[in-house]
Amino acid sequence: MTGFPERGFPEAEFAARTERAQARMAASGLAGLLLMSEAEVRYFSGFHTLFWQSPTRPWFLFLPLSGKPIAVIPEIGAELMRGTWLDDIRTWSAPCPDDDGLSLLEDLLAPLAEAGKPIGVMKGHETSLRMPLGDYERLMARLPNLAIVDATGLVRGLRMIKSEREIEKIAHICAIGSRTFAKVPELAHEGLPLEELFRAFRREGLAEGADDVPYLVGGADRGGYRDVISPPSRRPLARGDVLMLDTGAVWDGYYCDFDRNFAIGSADDASRRAYDVLWRATEAGIEAARVGTTCRQLFRTMQAVIAELDNQGGDIGRLGHGLGMQLTEWPSHAAFDETVIEENMVLTLEPSLSYGDGRLMVHEENIVVRKDGAELLSERAERALPVI
Amino acid sequence: MTGFPERGFPEAEFAARTERAQARMAASGLAGLLLMSEAEVRYFSGFHTLFWQSPTRPWFLFLPLSGKPIAVIPEIGAELMRGTWLDDIRTWSAPCPDDDGLSLLEDLLAPLAEAGKPIGVMKGHETSLRMPLGDYERLMARLPNLAIVDATGLVRGLRMIKSEREIEKIAHICAIGSRTFAKVPELAHEGLPLEELFRAFRREGLAEGADDVPYLVGGADRGGYRDVISPPSRRPLARGDVLMLDTGAVWDGYYCDFDRNFAIGSADDASRRAYDVLWRATEAGIEAARVGTTCRQLFRTMQAVIAELDNQGGDIGRLGHGLGMQLTEWPSHAAFDETVIEENMVLTLEPSLSYGDGRLMVHEENIVVRKDGAELLSERAERALPVI
Repeated sequence: MTGFPERGFPEAEFAARTERAQARMAASGLAGLLLMSEAEVRYFSGFHTLFWQSPTRPWFLFLPLSGKPIAVIPEIGAELMRGTWLDDIRTWSAPCPDDDGLSLLEDLLAPLAEAGKPIGVMKGHETSLRMPLGDYERLMARLPNLAIVDATGLVRGLRMIKSEREIEKIAHICAIGSRTFAKVPELAHEGLPLEELFRAFRREGLAEGADDVPYLVGGADRGGYRDVISPPSRRPLARGDVLMLDTGAVWDGYYCDFDRNFAIGSADDASRRAYDVLWRATEAGIEAARVGTTCRQLFRTMQAVIAELDNQGGDIGRLGHGLGMQLTEWPSHAAFDETVIEENMVLTLEPSLSYGDGRLMVHEENIVVRKDGAELLSERAERALPVI
Repeated sequence: MTGFPERGFPEAEFAARTERAQARMAASGLAGLLLMSEAEVRYFSGFHTLFWQSPTRPWFLFLPLSGKPIAVIPEIGAELMRGTWLDDIRTWSAPCPDDDGLSLLEDLLAPLAEAGKPIGVMKGHETSLRMPLGDYERLMARLPNLAIVDATGLVRGLRMIKSEREIEKIAHICAIGSRTFAKVPELAHEGLPLEELFRAFRREGLAEGADDVPYLVGGADRGGYRDVISPPSRRPLARGDVLMLDTGAVWDGYYCDFDRNFAIGSADDASRRAYDVLWRATEAGIEAARVGTTCRQLFRTMQAVIAELDNQGGDIGRLGHGLGMQLTEWPSHAAFDETVIEENMVLTLEPSLSYGDGRLMVHEENIVVRKDGAELLSERAERALPVI
């Protein structure tokens, strides 16, 4: 077990991210970028708080074409924001339903509107508008000349490529996740309600060093589970069950996201076969995840192995995705995604299939793509379905 | 320690929620309600999953003017949604950036658009648009005759009043939170890094029966903390520190949200005084939180006590809020909020003040308002600043 990475990032990292964004803004004729989601505000400022779990207050970060980002935030966040590399922090007493930051945004954006200079807002795939839609519409009505361009592609292009410090954090939480999964044979046993196993898994993840284990889903059922997003039932684990746990644990704001399958007491042939196919599909994915490959090719490579058992395409919609500050990030390993894989992308490989009468199996690993190919960040799952 | 409440709700509860919404829709001339946020989808359907943590896929629930809600969701959620009381579940293979539910929504909404019947969407205070803004704009462009009305007030009015089953769940997690806080004197000691205390607190919360402890913030510093939303530092607790922990723990999808203050080794006079004022402000709030009072009055009652030490109004913007499926919900105890308090509202009372040179103290309890007054759900904080 190696030492801990450092928390946070040096100022130079935020400056480099900002400069890269500004170069792309200049190239696409954008005079600014208005960001309001947790990951983007944190990516450019370093502002890190769980307070985003409260939906009450909006938070804004504006990237001008040059210079540091400008924060437009509720007063409750001022002290924490002053600890970041930002200089220009504008606050209001929030919540204030009549004017939750709108006047401050109007002051900031009016000169751009008057000068006919467009700004970017993230409006695309895998984004949300993290402010009231009514307030957004009011802001647009107050700045009728402000041109808004979708900046999802710009931010996506930056965030998909991880820095070494980001990779170090993700590797750290993946190692914690691996050690936690390694304890499952001690934690799980016949007769234990699934709900209690979830609780024990979370406690173990914290003991292994996770800051939190916010995402934990899974299932267990005789001969295979049928659903991969449920909360746990009180049903006790029984001999012949296939158990799956899928976790997103967090360290310093970065996620792991992988799962493991186990058979309780004994494994049926169909589940062992499904496991074997998925293990080999993952292996093919690890081999194929190279610089210059597209996500579509990676998808097809894994799908070709899965088709030995299931050629229906499944219900999950893709066979893996990006990973970092969010549990799931761009890109998607899917037929629609032509993203070219680049060095230092962190990805999940997540093949899945249906078998038997509506049973489902998923398998997942986390990798970082290096110059010479993929490196595993999660400890590779056992070659055959492990029996507890 | 009493037994566990049952998980979930009987179908009759969802039917009653839906009928109440439909009566309000009829009264305000709405032909439907298009919902897309976790709490609202769960409130009317019972669909409960942590998968919302993945930002990749949008999820929709449509409430018609009569009959059950209609789900328009990614295939990955179909199996779980089939376990709810819903009958009409429409799915697509998501993610699909070109058509992430839009065609299904268009089919559903086109007849209303043609008939000139408006629908409600939540666009107001404390809401977000939990789908890509670009997709929302595309949907509106495809249905140019569809009138959209802000339905925040309608849903807010329903969700603010809790059922007995909801109150039972919140009471259960508040009791778990209280037992967890009672262990802090055993967990915390001089020399322990705050980060380790946070980890120990989360583990204890799980051991006491929480499903998760997703929200945990706080601070510790000599003679008082200066920030209430930070993640923990590695700084070891030291004699003379004032420590605050504020947690949102969860059971079956319902939150507690309260905090506790502790002095490490010894307490300074200014912090003891601040604690005393906040304790009495909370006491005044508990007494004032009665059916028929407004949130503004409740705010003023607490503020009058706080003013003994601090008449600046503070940085937090309000002195408490609603509580339930979200860590913070409507209403706000603030001068702007004229909401009349009704029976079975679950509220936090959260007075705060500044003292000394920029130190901050917060204090929080959770209550349910009954016919005859407030009942505490959290175990009342000690009368004087406890010293560990």
